[in-house]
Amino acid sequence: MAVAARSQPLDADSRRDAGRALRAAVRAGAHDGLTTGLAPGMVQANLVVLPADWAAEFERYRALNPKPCPLLAMTAPGDPMLAGLGEGIDIRTDAPRYNVFRDGVLTEEATDISGLWRDDFVGFALGCSYSFEEALLSAGLPLRHHELGVKVPLYLTDIETEAAGPFHGRMVVSMRPFNPADAIRAIAITARCEKVHGAPVHFGDPAAIGIPDIEKPWLGPAVPFRPGEVPLFWACGVTPQMAIEQARPPLAITHKPGHMLITDMLNAELAA
Amino acid sequence: MAVAARSQPLDADSRRDAGRALRAAVRAGAHDGLTTGLAPGMVQANLVVLPADWAAEFERYRALNPKPCPLLAMTAPGDPMLAGLGEGIDIRTDAPRYNVFRDGVLTEEATDISGLWRDDFVGFALGCSYSFEEALLSAGLPLRHHELGVKVPLYLTDIETEAAGPFHGRMVVSMRPFNPADAIRAIAITARCEKVHGAPVHFGDPAAIGIPDIEKPWLGPAVPFRPGEVPLFWACGVTPQMAIEQARPPLAITHKPGHMLITDMLNAELAA
Repeated sequence: MAVAARSQPLDADSRRDAGRALRAAVRAGAHDGLTTGLAPGMVQANLVVLPADWAAEFERYRALNPKPCPLLAMTAPGDPMLAGLGEGIDIRTDAPRYNVFRDGVLTEEATDISGLWRDDFVGFALGCSYSFEEALLSAGLPLRHHELGVKVPLYLTDIETEAAGPFHGRMVVSMRPFNPADAIRAIAITARCEKVHGAPVHFGDPAAIGIPDIEKPWLGPAVPFRPGEVPLFWACGVTPQMAIEQARPPLAITHKPGHMLITDMLNAELAA
Repeated sequence: MAVAARSQPLDADSRRDAGRALRAAVRAGAHDGLTTGLAPGMVQANLVVLPADWAAEFERYRALNPKPCPLLAMTAPGDPMLAGLGEGIDIRTDAPRYNVFRDGVLTEEATDISGLWRDDFVGFALGCSYSFEEALLSAGLPLRHHELGVKVPLYLTDIETEAAGPFHGRMVVSMRPFNPADAIRAIAITARCEKVHGAPVHFGDPAAIGIPDIEKPWLGPAVPFRPGEVPLFWACGVTPQMAIEQARPPLAITHKPGHMLITDMLNAELAA
C-alpha cells in the first residue's frame, strides 16, 4: 500500500479514492501495519470504544480536554458505523490494529474487533497530528521524523488532564524539533488546526512538563536535534489510553498508536 | 490626558472620541510625551516622512519588509493629510514628538514639523505593536512592561532587512517575556495581527539574533524575567529609522519612538 504514499500530489477525488483503497485493504486484512505517511491528504483518526454506561463520562472528559481529544465523530450506541467521516466506515474492522483494555489493563492486540463488539458500545474518532503535519509540510517546514522515516516520538508528561468521573490521567505529547523561526511558524499554523490538537502545549525545557530525558521517548525512537533547535510538544490522541488505564472500565478498545483509521475527509476540510 | 487610559472599557464611539481628544491635545501642544497606554482601543502609528524622490525606494523597502514595516496609510506627495486613518489627521502636527534626520544623522527633535514641510514630502504610517498588545491583554496574557509601567524594551539585532536601493540595515525588535504556555498563545494571537508586525521573529537565545546582553536594551529599560520565562522578539516599527541612517536622504522625519500618532481606527478593525 506504500504506493499511495510515494505518488505525486493528487486531486481531492484521487486522494479520497486512494484512502478508500487503503481502508479496504485494512478491512480485508491486507494491511495491518502503521499508517504513518500513507493516504496523503486524508484525515486519520484516533479511536476509543467504550460501553455506553462509560461513554457519557468519557465524552465529558473528552470535551474538557479538547487539545488531546478533539472530536471528529461519535457513533450511536451499538452502531459500529462512523457516519460523518465517510461512506461505510466500520470502527470494528477499519483500523489496522487495536489495543484491548480489560479493567484498565492492556491485555491484547487485535486486527478486527467484530468478535468483541457489543450492542452497548459507543465509538469515538478523535483528530490526529498527521493532519496538522500536512499543513506544516505544505508550509515548507521540515519534520525530523519524516526525514528519518520513523514514527513521531511520544512522551508521557506530568501535565494532569481535566478529570471527569473516573477518567483522568497524564497527558501524552508528540515532539517535533524546530529552530525558533520555524517554531514560530509551526505554532501559528497548528493554532489554526483546532480539530487536530491545535497549538503546542509546551516548548523548550522538557523537565518543565515532567519529561526527564528527551533522548528516551515513552513511545517511538528519539530524533536528533540540530544546533539552536528547540523541542515543540503537542497534545496527543493517545492520551485517552492513559485515562482508560486510570478509569478501569471492564472493557475498552482503542486503536494501537500509529495504526490509525483512514477516513474519507480531507485534511484541508478540517482547517478552520 | 491620562484620564483616557484609566477609564473603564468604553464603546467604540467613546474610544474614538477619546482618541480624537488626545490627538487634538497633541496638535495644540498640550501633550508632547509618550502615548504608551493612552487612547486604549485606538490604532497608534509609526511615521516616516521622505522627499518623493526617496519615497518610492522606501516604499519598495517597506513592502520587502512587512514585519517591521506594515503599511497603514501613505500620503500623496505634498499632502500632509493621512486620509484613510481618520478625519483630518495631519502628519505634520499630530504626533507628540518627531525625530529629524539630515543626511542620515538624527540632528534634532520637534513637536511640530510644519516649518520643515515641503511640497514633495510623502508620509507613511506604519503599524505599531501597541495594537497587538491590546489583543494579548484581551486574551489575559500579562505584559511585563505594562505591569512595571515602563516602555517596552527595544533591541538592535543582527537580522539584516531586505535591501531596496539605498535603504537597508538591521532590524529593531521589541521584547516581551512569557512562560512557554503563554508564549504559544502570544505567537498564535499575533500571527493573526499581520498589519501590526505579525508573529514574533525569534524567541529564546538573544545571542542567536545578535543581542549580546538582554539586560541592556538598545532603547528603554530592561524588564526582569521570572523562572522559566523566555524572551519573545517582535519586529519593531522603529526599524525604518535604521534604514534612514544607512540611506542618508538629505532630509527625513520620523516620529520619536514611543511618541506615536493616534488614529481614528480601532485595533479591532485591524484584525484579519
